[in-house]
Amino acid sequence: MPIDPSAVGATSDPVRHSWTSKDAILYALGVGAGAVDPLGELAFTTENSNGIDQQVLPTMAVVLGGGGGGAFASIGSFNPAMLVHGEQAIELHGPIPVEGEVETVGEITGIYDKGKGALVEVRSASTDTATGQPLFTTTMSAFIRGEGGFGGDRGPSGPKNPPPERAPDHETAYVTRSDQALLYRLSGDRNPLHSDPTFAAMGGFDRPILHGLCTYGFTGRALLHRLCASDPARFRGMEGRFSSPVLPGERLTVRMWEVGPGEALFHTTGDDGRVVLDGGRLTYDAA
Amino acid sequence: MPIDPSAVGATSDPVRHSWTSKDAILYALGVGAGAVDPLGELAFTTENSNGIDQQVLPTMAVVLGGGGGGAFASIGSFNPAMLVHGEQAIELHGPIPVEGEVETVGEITGIYDKGKGALVEVRSASTDTATGQPLFTTTMSAFIRGEGGFGGDRGPSGPKNPPPERAPDHETAYVTRSDQALLYRLSGDRNPLHSDPTFAAMGGFDRPILHGLCTYGFTGRALLHRLCASDPARFRGMEGRFSSPVLPGERLTVRMWEVGPGEALFHTTGDDGRVVLDGGRLTYDAA
Repeated sequence: MPIDPSAVGATSDPVRHSWTSKDAILYALGVGAGAVDPLGELAFTTENSNGIDQQVLPTMAVVLGGGGGGAFASIGSFNPAMLVHGEQAIELHGPIPVEGEVETVGEITGIYDKGKGALVEVRSASTDTATGQPLFTTTMSAFIRGEGGFGGDRGPSGPKNPPPERAPDHETAYVTRSDQALLYRLSGDRNPLHSDPTFAAMGGFDRPILHGLCTYGFTGRALLHRLCASDPARFRGMEGRFSSPVLPGERLTVRMWEVGPGEALFHTTGDDGRVVLDGGRLTYDAA
Repeated sequence: MPIDPSAVGATSDPVRHSWTSKDAILYALGVGAGAVDPLGELAFTTENSNGIDQQVLPTMAVVLGGGGGGAFASIGSFNPAMLVHGEQAIELHGPIPVEGEVETVGEITGIYDKGKGALVEVRSASTDTATGQPLFTTTMSAFIRGEGGFGGDRGPSGPKNPPPERAPDHETAYVTRSDQALLYRLSGDRNPLHSDPTFAAMGGFDRPILHGLCTYGFTGRALLHRLCASDPARFRGMEGRFSSPVLPGERLTVRMWEVGPGEALFHTTGDDGRVVLDGGRLTYDAA
């Protein structure tokens, strides 16, 4: 049974997901916090440093809000091995608490016919169950190979958020570790594509590849530190498109262009200069 | 109130401690598994690699059996800042399950008067609550500065397990990471001496030092791989004495001498060749 293009608008059951201070630290270490300067990001990697309140990296929303992915069930059956992560956006209504619980509802917001496959977009809205207030919204799109050709709308296309043709205003490079994926996967995504060489080979990769959302987290850290003075309360929204797999151990370079008050465009490149996270846009509270 | 030398024989209430597959992986990553060769220790760092059953590093016993430390309460009050980890031994009755629960009872097995301080030895016996069988015993001694001079027995002294005066039979070096302690502490010991520079300075250290038990875990990995063919079922017992603090980022070199069937002596040195884990002895099932 192919996917059902009329599933747009379908929503998932509400899913609750709670997290602890330890989960937040594990996520931060998983996206490289503390690796360059172990004493430089203690707010994100410790809960008991003198005079430092623990904080949560804004990109952890992608882990906590993942429950909305249940909406995928409504599009019908497909081979999950054919799914590739396309775009990922997050919008934060405030800083993520150090520990807490969210209730998340996912909604299918678009199914596009790209010919060789279908592009499915899911938006997940997460509410803080302690306050009843919206905490963050995450939007992900997935490209499902082999599921196109159903005669539907092609959807938006063309380059998104192209950066200005000038040198970037900021540039931050982080080296990922050869075992980065082994640590990142403890935050939830245990897909063996990222750890098991035999499984990776079946997917056509010489060795396991890094989680796209791990690259996203490294990139978010760079944006947070360079554009938000390391203050999660100033980090509002981030979007980008995964354009190339990353191998653990690659150096990630994030280039940022300030294009307006509280608005920056960015992209992230890998070892050889190829763009791995493209069309990036950050919104933030300018100082 | 000083410590009470007559507390020898006092036992703690039974304490239960459960762990999951994820805890075992987090511990393994915390003591460097996968850091050199991310695909080389998948049995310890993943739960879903093709054809590989997850296993637990034997030294995780020091984390799981820690509950017996409650016996310390029976020796009276002392300043915990004056406590230094002395020796650590583990004895395993079989491999540690990937997930499970132990019940641990600690017993004060010795209080010695070393003049400048007291040496207190606690033995903790842990039983697998699923089977009712003994799983492992851990023995730790702590030197408490300023609590000596009560006129008690000095206890055993002199070098322990001196290695033969010949080149080691095996040598394994692992580089710890500058942020190693940030990851290791997630396995339970959140003492800020290992993460917070202001707290470390109060203890007289230029920067946070690595957990002694993290060094112990790196050393145990080296022993497991070189002498037990990476098979935890063959790892029986390990003992050693902490002789110098280690800074995160140091290279640890473990030298091993086979001295009899299923018996090896070892020590671990830091960057500058000083011995950091001394008087080591491993017992194992020889092939």
